[in-house]
Amino acid sequence: MKNTKNLTYPGSTKTYIQGKLFPELKVPFRLIKLSNQEQIRVYDTSGPYSEPNFQTDLSAGLPQIRQTHDFPKETQLGFAKKGIITPEMEFIAIREQVEPEFVLAEVAKGHAIIPANHKHFALEPMIIGKNFLTKINSNIGNSSACSSIEKEIEKMTSSIWYGADTVMDLSTGENINETRAMIIKNAPVPIGTVPIYQALKKVNGEIKDLCWELYKETIIEQAEQGVDYFTIHAGLLKDFMPLVKKRKLGIVSRGGSIIATWCQIHNQENFLYTHFEELCDILGRYDISFSLGDGLRPGSIFDANDEAQFAELKILGELQKIAYAKNVQVMIEGPGHVTLDLIKENMEKEIEFCNDAPFYTLGPLVTDSALGYDHVASAIGGAQIGFLGTAMLCYVTPKEHIGLPNLEDVKEGLIVHKLAAHASDLAKKNKQAWQRDEAMARARVEFRWEDQLKLSLDPSAVNKFQEQLNLTGKNYCSMCGPNFCAMKLSKAALA
Amino acid sequence: MKNTKNLTYPGSTKTYIQGKLFPELKVPFRLIKLSNQEQIRVYDTSGPYSEPNFQTDLSAGLPQIRQTHDFPKETQLGFAKKGIITPEMEFIAIREQVEPEFVLAEVAKGHAIIPANHKHFALEPMIIGKNFLTKINSNIGNSSACSSIEKEIEKMTSSIWYGADTVMDLSTGENINETRAMIIKNAPVPIGTVPIYQALKKVNGEIKDLCWELYKETIIEQAEQGVDYFTIHAGLLKDFMPLVKKRKLGIVSRGGSIIATWCQIHNQENFLYTHFEELCDILGRYDISFSLGDGLRPGSIFDANDEAQFAELKILGELQKIAYAKNVQVMIEGPGHVTLDLIKENMEKEIEFCNDAPFYTLGPLVTDSALGYDHVASAIGGAQIGFLGTAMLCYVTPKEHIGLPNLEDVKEGLIVHKLAAHASDLAKKNKQAWQRDEAMARARVEFRWEDQLKLSLDPSAVNKFQEQLNLTGKNYCSMCGPNFCAMKLSKAALA
Repeated sequence: MKNTKNLTYPGSTKTYIQGKLFPELKVPFRLIKLSNQEQIRVYDTSGPYSEPNFQTDLSAGLPQIRQTHDFPKETQLGFAKKGIITPEMEFIAIREQVEPEFVLAEVAKGHAIIPANHKHFALEPMIIGKNFLTKINSNIGNSSACSSIEKEIEKMTSSIWYGADTVMDLSTGENINETRAMIIKNAPVPIGTVPIYQALKKVNGEIKDLCWELYKETIIEQAEQGVDYFTIHAGLLKDFMPLVKKRKLGIVSRGGSIIATWCQIHNQENFLYTHFEELCDILGRYDISFSLGDGLRPGSIFDANDEAQFAELKILGELQKIAYAKNVQVMIEGPGHVTLDLIKENMEKEIEFCNDAPFYTLGPLVTDSALGYDHVASAIGGAQIGFLGTAMLCYVTPKEHIGLPNLEDVKEGLIVHKLAAHASDLAKKNKQAWQRDEAMARARVEFRWEDQLKLSLDPSAVNKFQEQLNLTGKNYCSMCGPNFCAMKLSKAALA
Repeated sequence: MKNTKNLTYPGSTKTYIQGKLFPELKVPFRLIKLSNQEQIRVYDTSGPYSEPNFQTDLSAGLPQIRQTHDFPKETQLGFAKKGIITPEMEFIAIREQVEPEFVLAEVAKGHAIIPANHKHFALEPMIIGKNFLTKINSNIGNSSACSSIEKEIEKMTSSIWYGADTVMDLSTGENINETRAMIIKNAPVPIGTVPIYQALKKVNGEIKDLCWELYKETIIEQAEQGVDYFTIHAGLLKDFMPLVKKRKLGIVSRGGSIIATWCQIHNQENFLYTHFEELCDILGRYDISFSLGDGLRPGSIFDANDEAQFAELKILGELQKIAYAKNVQVMIEGPGHVTLDLIKENMEKEIEFCNDAPFYTLGPLVTDSALGYDHVASAIGGAQIGFLGTAMLCYVTPKEHIGLPNLEDVKEGLIVHKLAAHASDLAKKNKQAWQRDEAMARARVEFRWEDQLKLSLDPSAVNKFQEQLNLTGKNYCSMCGPNFCAMKLSKAALA
């Protein structure tokens, strides 16, 4: 399988910065070349795909950049606690424009994670934590309906071109293992999964037949393939069911509903909770991170911040402490549907209960009524919770609540969440984020229209608005016309 | 000119509630008919256009529903101060589902305004104030490039169908007077303008030739036509120019840059400031509201919350007090480009300086880098400032900063700002907003897919997703498929 699709960025080149502690490291950046000869360096999630003339053999996978490091198989958290800077940490420090010691300190405290399975050789390491750039996740995956491996790889490469920092493979259809293996081999970003989906498929969808042994076998298979983080709904306890019954929308998390059903059928405690230490041992062997799933996330603003939600969050906090003690990295998944006035409490409780482990939220969607525009409802809530401290936003597409997204939906979802994450970063005074806006502001005041397009958070803006540019004069845009340009007038007045 | 375009809402009928104090009042609502026989009544901005089989003769205009009231020509604020409930106040009370006395009290304090020129006979009265539903404004208007009167009417009717509460006519092209007259005659919502644009046109774009007499003549012409509110940049003083020079983007308000230029050329104080009392007298005669323009709104996040911006805001507050004393209603225009962390200060300062007069903001856009997606950058900031107390959001379209919006851009801009306004209302615990989300949440849990489409804030969702619905089964959607529906599973588990 060959992939020769050009994924370079218009008006840009690819550049690499070499490591100092680890000179073999080549940290990628997109270099936006402006018409005034300036070059703006921005964070780049696209991997080798954006190199000019890059051709990949999908079956061989991307170059194995991590194979050369001959570290013992300890976890990033284990090294961090010992004060050892790893190649991954230096790679990240260069990407984030901070010191490696800062990366180490944040990881050591459990305030940031580096999802990096020892067996994911093509991975360009990245970090998830509130004191770094806010990240976004894209969901891909086939369903029983359709999709080929090539199609899934295309969704992945398209996602990272638009700025996805991690990708979750939520496949529930055919050839799950083969699809996942191919995605990981060809992915420069961390890949996450929800292993219960595959476990359930193995028992032909019969929830009652799920059991720990089967689940364990499934996660080991996936771990061997190189998955970087697992969503595991270990905090949903049997005792929470009465709290859920008070709700308007019950359980809207797929994983959560599977676990709840299993607990009811067997009248037993959630086996992910009862086997949590064993889970830590398995994940620790590969340095896979936990994404502790919020099976009881509110699926309606009527259920936001309720007892059920916070009861589970408290348990997630307890599990975080267990994993942290065992040197396994953890992030915590968050809601869901939450109105703007209740977002702050979510962030505060997560920090309080979960030792300030990175928060990874779906939305929050600030209304239930945005059908067709749920990506925007999610971006509104996401920007706010990102500003307050959420480390990664899971994208939501316009098709949320109504169907499976197509490539156009994926694009829309990614751009508006990238925008939300960037807005959070600006509000948190991230230097790298401000550098980009500074370049845009200068391009705007100097009427450099093409530069503005290159600097847009939407990398397709250059092509999209090319025609528009032809309508645009040197010292004005078609919006105000030549006689009514405020900037032109005020420049003259202030000269 | 005939307009027979069907502007009814799918799955809905039009209904009216009669006034009690004024039985001749017929207050319009959209009644969404759900498949379980329920009917959800929602606020309706679309005027008679959404009546079935409505046909309008554009040259005759809409029915003159306000002509019958034989009130003396006092202002709404004047009546409110005297404790007199007007037909407009009762109309609004019914629309907003509050008591008429509450409307009166908010208007009397200057915390809400009813923009309603005595001569705008087709107007369905509405209110702008933070203790009512958050409103949105759409901008239309021809340019020197093109556009016909019919096209502008189409933009207006399309805007109100998508939920625009007011419409500003920013025409700078040909037939300005004729276009405006036709828009007002056919508009059930308040129409705002920026009179300095037309004044400047009268002097062929020569800013130096502007003067008070010419401006005065222009606003009287527009007042006679029935314009409901004027954006007037009376707070931008000559002395503020040194503050503007420190900025990255200077002045980005068109009106602001015209005034600044005039002040520089003549080395004189802003004539809108020096003639403010006379302005009040003219506006008061028609009960036109001031929208005090923020000529120094930041056009970049680098200029947000700076000295220049707040110096002008302070003056706007002084002018608000003068107008209030003369019974002329006032709202205050706000930024602009502001990062999420600085939004709160904007709202707080507006309340402090401006006697809690309604705030009417453009955005705020939370980043400069969203070219092509500035409508979303604006919705993110707008939802937040709406929650904090802003009364009306001016929409921003995807073409902001790059060109003039087409009908599709107008639609996108309106829907995402309606969504932002609704998110603000939910966060402010507005009962009417929660009713809508309640209906949506129930439709969702009961798998009533078509009802969800009808209840979407996007009135075009029904048509847009019709095909999607065919893929959808009775008890699941195509998103999760029949075997993985969380709500279905959890319902069974909790039964």
